[in-house]
Amino acid sequence: MIEKVDHIGIAVKSLEDGIALYESMLGIKCEKIEVVESQQVKTAFFHIGDMHIELLCPTSDDSPIAKFLEKNGGGIHHIAYASSDINSDLDRVKTLGINLIHETPITGANDKQVAFLHPKSTQKVLTEFCQ
Amino acid sequence: MIEKVDHIGIAVKSLEDGIALYESMLGIKCEKIEVVESQQVKTAFFHIGDMHIELLCPTSDDSPIAKFLEKNGGGIHHIAYASSDINSDLDRVKTLGINLIHETPITGANDKQVAFLHPKSTQKVLTEFCQ
Repeated sequence: MIEKVDHIGIAVKSLEDGIALYESMLGIKCEKIEVVESQQVKTAFFHIGDMHIELLCPTSDDSPIAKFLEKNGGGIHHIAYASSDINSDLDRVKTLGINLIHETPITGANDKQVAFLHPKSTQKVLTEFCQ
Repeated sequence: MIEKVDHIGIAVKSLEDGIALYESMLGIKCEKIEVVESQQVKTAFFHIGDMHIELLCPTSDDSPIAKFLEKNGGGIHHIAYASSDINSDLDRVKTLGINLIHETPITGANDKQVAFLHPKSTQKVLTEFCQ
């Protein structure tokens, strides 16, 4: 079952500048910085309400975030929803005809199990389920 | 003060198709549909966790959402943060050098007072404050 929005992923060219913007604009402190090897990104987390803002900065030119930044220069990259049972939710959306980027969850930030749904199946919104 | 994420605004070509996708993908029901004259959009609200997903469909070719759809075909349009005192938060971010699209709040969905920050000042993320 989908429980809530877990985080919003935002691509930034510089993690330092991104952290400075979000700390000053929202008046909240960066909670932690983590490198996520599977996505070739360095991430900065901000806790806000019952969710997080996650700034994403590429650690390699091959990172999906590097490609996104090249095209868009920055911006909102994805929405992640917290699932109570990710395998069951992935099976459920597959029966709706939604294509998955990850048929099987991979390890994301915070050691969560994560899987992306294909934006072609979700009206151009890159959508993540995580648990 | 910024309290939480109030909603994520997502642009859709068809409100009907958007509602069908989010109801099936997330397993939640559309809460209400509302026309917001000031933004020339019809919106569909989904309550999830302590926030909302807001689908946005243009009611006119002059709507900012119509222009966004023309360029992108769909996708995440903006993030809105709930403020306990919107005028004070707008003044605060102005002193940080952030440009505002609305110097004075306008009336948005749910009769909230809303104002957009310019994406050129927010690393390409269209950001809304609302109260």
